[in-house]
Amino acid sequence: MTTVAHQPDPIDQLCINTIRTLAMDAVQKANSGHPGMPMGAAAMTYVLWDRFLRFNPANPKWTNRDRFILSCGHGCMLLYALLHLTGYDVPLDQIKQFRQLGSITPGHPEYGLTPGVEATTGPLGQGFANGVGMAMAERFLAATFNRPGFSIVDYTIYGIVSDGDLEEGISSEAASLAGHLGLGNLIYLYDDNHISIEGDTALAFNENVDARFAAYGWHVQSADGNNLEEVAKAITKAREVKDQPSLIRCRTHIAFGSPHKQDNASAHGSPLGEDEVRLTKRNLGWPEDAHFFIPDESLKRFRSALSRGAQLESEWKQLFDAYQKNFPAEAQQWKLMQEGKLPEGWDKNLPVFTGDSAPLATREASGKVINALADAIPWFIGGSADLAPSTDTLMKKSGDFEKGHPDSRNLHFGIREHAMGAIINGMALSRLVVYGATFLQFSDYQRPTLRLAALSEYPSIFVFTHDSIGLGEDGPTHQPVEHLAALRAIPHLTVIRPADATETVYAWKWAIENRTSPTVLVFTRQKLPVIDRQKFASAENLFKGAYILAESKGGPPEIILMATGSEVSLALDAWQQLTSRSIRARVVSMPSWELFEQQPAAYREEVLPRSLTARLAIEMASPMGWHQWVGDRGDMLCVDRFGASAPLQPLLEAFGFTVDNVVSRALKLLNRTGAGSPESGADKGKLP
Amino acid sequence: MTTVAHQPDPIDQLCINTIRTLAMDAVQKANSGHPGMPMGAAAMTYVLWDRFLRFNPANPKWTNRDRFILSCGHGCMLLYALLHLTGYDVPLDQIKQFRQLGSITPGHPEYGLTPGVEATTGPLGQGFANGVGMAMAERFLAATFNRPGFSIVDYTIYGIVSDGDLEEGISSEAASLAGHLGLGNLIYLYDDNHISIEGDTALAFNENVDARFAAYGWHVQSADGNNLEEVAKAITKAREVKDQPSLIRCRTHIAFGSPHKQDNASAHGSPLGEDEVRLTKRNLGWPEDAHFFIPDESLKRFRSALSRGAQLESEWKQLFDAYQKNFPAEAQQWKLMQEGKLPEGWDKNLPVFTGDSAPLATREASGKVINALADAIPWFIGGSADLAPSTDTLMKKSGDFEKGHPDSRNLHFGIREHAMGAIINGMALSRLVVYGATFLQFSDYQRPTLRLAALSEYPSIFVFTHDSIGLGEDGPTHQPVEHLAALRAIPHLTVIRPADATETVYAWKWAIENRTSPTVLVFTRQKLPVIDRQKFASAENLFKGAYILAESKGGPPEIILMATGSEVSLALDAWQQLTSRSIRARVVSMPSWELFEQQPAAYREEVLPRSLTARLAIEMASPMGWHQWVGDRGDMLCVDRFGASAPLQPLLEAFGFTVDNVVSRALKLLNRTGAGSPESGADKGKLP
Repeated sequence: MTTVAHQPDPIDQLCINTIRTLAMDAVQKANSGHPGMPMGAAAMTYVLWDRFLRFNPANPKWTNRDRFILSCGHGCMLLYALLHLTGYDVPLDQIKQFRQLGSITPGHPEYGLTPGVEATTGPLGQGFANGVGMAMAERFLAATFNRPGFSIVDYTIYGIVSDGDLEEGISSEAASLAGHLGLGNLIYLYDDNHISIEGDTALAFNENVDARFAAYGWHVQSADGNNLEEVAKAITKAREVKDQPSLIRCRTHIAFGSPHKQDNASAHGSPLGEDEVRLTKRNLGWPEDAHFFIPDESLKRFRSALSRGAQLESEWKQLFDAYQKNFPAEAQQWKLMQEGKLPEGWDKNLPVFTGDSAPLATREASGKVINALADAIPWFIGGSADLAPSTDTLMKKSGDFEKGHPDSRNLHFGIREHAMGAIINGMALSRLVVYGATFLQFSDYQRPTLRLAALSEYPSIFVFTHDSIGLGEDGPTHQPVEHLAALRAIPHLTVIRPADATETVYAWKWAIENRTSPTVLVFTRQKLPVIDRQKFASAENLFKGAYILAESKGGPPEIILMATGSEVSLALDAWQQLTSRSIRARVVSMPSWELFEQQPAAYREEVLPRSLTARLAIEMASPMGWHQWVGDRGDMLCVDRFGASAPLQPLLEAFGFTVDNVVSRALKLLNRTGAGSPESGADKGKLP
Repeated sequence: MTTVAHQPDPIDQLCINTIRTLAMDAVQKANSGHPGMPMGAAAMTYVLWDRFLRFNPANPKWTNRDRFILSCGHGCMLLYALLHLTGYDVPLDQIKQFRQLGSITPGHPEYGLTPGVEATTGPLGQGFANGVGMAMAERFLAATFNRPGFSIVDYTIYGIVSDGDLEEGISSEAASLAGHLGLGNLIYLYDDNHISIEGDTALAFNENVDARFAAYGWHVQSADGNNLEEVAKAITKAREVKDQPSLIRCRTHIAFGSPHKQDNASAHGSPLGEDEVRLTKRNLGWPEDAHFFIPDESLKRFRSALSRGAQLESEWKQLFDAYQKNFPAEAQQWKLMQEGKLPEGWDKNLPVFTGDSAPLATREASGKVINALADAIPWFIGGSADLAPSTDTLMKKSGDFEKGHPDSRNLHFGIREHAMGAIINGMALSRLVVYGATFLQFSDYQRPTLRLAALSEYPSIFVFTHDSIGLGEDGPTHQPVEHLAALRAIPHLTVIRPADATETVYAWKWAIENRTSPTVLVFTRQKLPVIDRQKFASAENLFKGAYILAESKGGPPEIILMATGSEVSLALDAWQQLTSRSIRARVVSMPSWELFEQQPAAYREEVLPRSLTARLAIEMASPMGWHQWVGDRGDMLCVDRFGASAPLQPLLEAFGFTVDNVVSRALKLLNRTGAGSPESGADKGKLP
């Protein structure tokens, strides 16, 4: 592409410089932030918003809007400026409060806080992969809901991505999958400014980005990022390419317009300085002493987005009304989905397990639940990072979501856990009820996506199987130890590790109904008995996080055995033995610490009475955090070293997860020397 | 490349089938494992080991050996078979004990457990990136130690990588960096078998791998993986390319030779079954009923590696002896490094801080220590994922490690945290004292590499700065909350969060001297006072993990304030106030839980006497795990929600990290209503 001498229309230039100066001023006032990126990318982003992006600032949640993702979230003043200027409910005062406590203009864009922010970004690569998820969702929704003549789902996902986004592995994973799926509804502008924090990007990044993306199957173009017509031409072309995602590499200049800081790393993460701000304004033909100055003509041009948006939404509403008349059932489902509701009776046909059911792994029970849910909820979709047979997450009646089959509901992420997490976040943001599955071990590979889901309250469902040393022969590289603790430590994340098939049903119910935050479901590889709920407490108590599963016989309990997941039936077996020895034990099943913490104090006291200090926790995982539940006089049978490669039974014995050892530990807690096996060396108390 | 009709030499074929049948038999006996990969990749790997790889089975630690990495660790029977056959100390009995408790043949290869295993692999992509680290280390060591005519460092890093490795983002990151650095000493054979667990790789992976790697700057070839001459020709060519890493894509067939399971996903992760094993042996011309059968001619051929290896090492030893005569100082350093020792007086010129020093961030103190260490230890090397100015990790007197400057010691990883972690693991395995730095928030991006370092006892040093909400305006996407807890939960990982500049010096000392496991160093962004060690206890106590920094005045303590990092000086300020009110408080600085746990019980009792139950923990992080230190009657001033974007001071006030609030919480613990500010809502006790 040849770069022609180019002079933008004066009003365009005015608008672009309005963005640049707002960004400079906000960063300068906050004395903190990243001015360079917004200044460099202002022109190309302006073209996109002015000529292509279909949105309605008065209704940021209009379902058929185009999505705009700023994957390089540090450049957020670019986005905040556009949101304010085009008429979103982001007042100028909030721009002046950039990065201040309580403002809606934080240091990186946060979904749910600021109208018009489509995804929380900042940790690099996340927005890139969220957008791939949104594009997949659009394809699925269009294939599922559109009818001939009624394209009620028809939008494009646009984004700005930076060198940092492209260096991160997560975007490589997501880009490869997007190319594979031929997501023509995805168009990213690459802000190719050649500058990163340490200096010229060539210090560490001189690959051929164009060729790499072409190898993934993307349609790749390049443009001068300050040349509006070149950028517009490339976007137009990208929109015409229906079967490939598009990357438009735009050569830009960080801190464009700054006499001393343009093209310099110093403009990346620090204010320009009062003097340089002044010089830059002079250079851009701006009043030097004005701060947060918005020329009337500029504002008028930007605010035309309001009438344009109202018109677009109104046209869509007409279309939807007609759709509703012709396809009332589909329209009804659409509305339910958009409201975050579920179809009537969605949980009527969930599987039922009884004490007579054959033992089965909770992953297997989960597989049955998934298939029942698939029948009941048309917008329930999910898949695995190449582990569907192992995680038991295939919807048997549905096909594979592939290029030619966007209405199918089995997602194949490939061996790309990190992208999977961000993609399901993007799909959850698109109102789908969505899960992604892998081994618990590999939650580490996608951890940043779990955190962002929790921070931003995305209702993503993360399924993790093979949840302990109990997975056996694969060995310590695959056996989780610290993962439960690490997940429980994330604020706003609900972690559920059900004890058997029946608790698994309720765990899924909770995850499906929870449309305001993410849920982690943790399942075993190994088979477990199905607890007889005629004899023991109902699994519906799972909703309370912890509950008395088995009560002491012959009087109030003198000891509590508390456990989660596969260790609950072990606790029950030990309870039988203790009971037969006239020891009054209570078993507490504790599938979710977070849900238990949300219960009233009285309920928590009922389950774990303060006065009852003999408490033994049993969990095949790190003891980290258990002290809060067992207290100073309690004990923990946990795992605080790495696992080992061996079949299940020898492992359980080596790590002390046997009935004899539990009984022995319980007796020791009660100061009675029991007949159990000697104490295992596999765990150690941590009390000082 | 054209595939010519090809019939290997009978002895080669016999050797290859020996590998295949050993793998089949071991997996079948264990009734668990991955037979397909070893069978498919046996031929190409045999060529590599038979004709190219320079190694000495009698001395797996010979420093100038070529490295072989099986990145797809699930195919470990391929490696175990080769180790046994070529004469490493891996007896046939261990092959028969595949995946059994206590064997040296676990489900995935573990470094340190099995002679000849160069890196722990299994979690995909890790080995790929470890190899890039090893290649960088070889380049650095050669540039540093070799002298004209004395190439004492001259080896190649070979590896087998799979589709899974190439799908993972970590390998994209590492590959881009390897291409950038022109690592001609790195040669990977890609086992392109078209099969993954869910079926054909085309389900999710149909990018053009060759073009992608060419875009990274790699030299790319392809070959028929069963055609020994084609593979050999490609490796020969790859060795000739000195300024590019090489990828040789070898088309292979999973479970090659199995009549019913070749090219089938069922052979990926399950035994073939007794009948199919028998049929396969028949098909390969093998005795059907023999198990673990090794023909004499085959063993003889494989074991020729022993004399070849002895010869190679002996030649190298002669070279090294001559080197030692000519360059005694360099040889002495080389030996020290190989023994995991440090130069005499390496810690003599570490910076000294006093109570008079101006306040400085611990990242800044760390920067000074790094520069002192750089002067003292020639094989100290490190860098950052594009955050060197922010993490303060630049060695000022050294240049940038780049293609033309492999002797420089500032590594530029680009925005690639995950690869950085695995690369420093690979460099640590090459005997370098190496660190990688990023923000604590992004420890999540590289978490799998921290775990592998801990599991395998790599002495990697992970530097994490910007360690709390105290980083300020960047906001919750960048403010760690749960990260300390998540890191502390990893077994065998030492996490150190020093309180001030002086503790920072000792933290680095500990990390540098600890050559048998990884260390995490956690530093602040914000400035902290330098604690006056004339008044308070010596920072050398850091080695004990926790120590009495300030003792109560006028009698034994009635309350303990315990804190880490930036909260220690807050605790000291509160201690001053309490003391002035005649409240007898003790301050415990607790930079490392792990080090404290390793102290004798008597010392732990001295610091935290069991009888002293009024304990307040202060840490700007998740309360997870603190209960074990404060006990049932203690309290925690922590952060169990996400942070906020704001300047430091308003944040500290909003989250309750003020002297007034600490005093108030302390008084409350002592059942005295104090004059402090009302309790912050930022934290909550978690006791049931």
